[in-house]
Amino acid sequence: MTPNPPYYALIFTSIHTDKIDEKYNELNDNLMDKITNLPGFIGLDSVRTENKVGITTIYFKDLESIKKWRKDTDHKYAKDFGKELWYENYNIRITKVEKEYGKI
Amino acid sequence: MTPNPPYYALIFTSIHTDKIDEKYNELNDNLMDKITNLPGFIGLDSVRTENKVGITTIYFKDLESIKKWRKDTDHKYAKDFGKELWYENYNIRITKVEKEYGKI
Repeated sequence: MTPNPPYYALIFTSIHTDKIDEKYNELNDNLMDKITNLPGFIGLDSVRTENKVGITTIYFKDLESIKKWRKDTDHKYAKDFGKELWYENYNIRITKVEKEYGKI
Repeated sequence: MTPNPPYYALIFTSIHTDKIDEKYNELNDNLMDKITNLPGFIGLDSVRTENKVGITTIYFKDLESIKKWRKDTDHKYAKDFGKELWYENYNIRITKVEKEYGKI
């Protein structure tokens, strides 16, 4: 569970190419490890179907934490690499969570 | 593609029970039809895996449109029904999209 709003959510929607390889999996594991250990990290939801469409939402305490993450060297490397090879298309939205409710 | 921010995104994360049935599919089709025809509707991304975890992000022009959607009778009925039968767990986040970028 995430804390009471406000906090921030990065929404990453993407479509994989058919070139997903061992290197992608390695980098992805590495980045997941890094992100969950960031100071402002709160939580993460991630889903990808077999037809290659994925949505990942990453929750952060504040905008500053997102900025730090976006400047991370490994992350940048993965993005540059991924843009060409692994992603048919992707979209990143930086959003401020204003309300939250759910099933207890 | 969505327009330049700001606009709003509703993030719906959920885990299905094993009780998904014909009635769910009917209601879901009906609601999807309704939502894409709402005045403030901009776009929608939706992914669910075979292990029953799903993320849907619905984009709206403003908060008013989200409020209207949340008051819709069929939507309410589906929620009440779904809470008991179809969802192991779910979470709704109302967020304001502040920035957006992606692969062209």
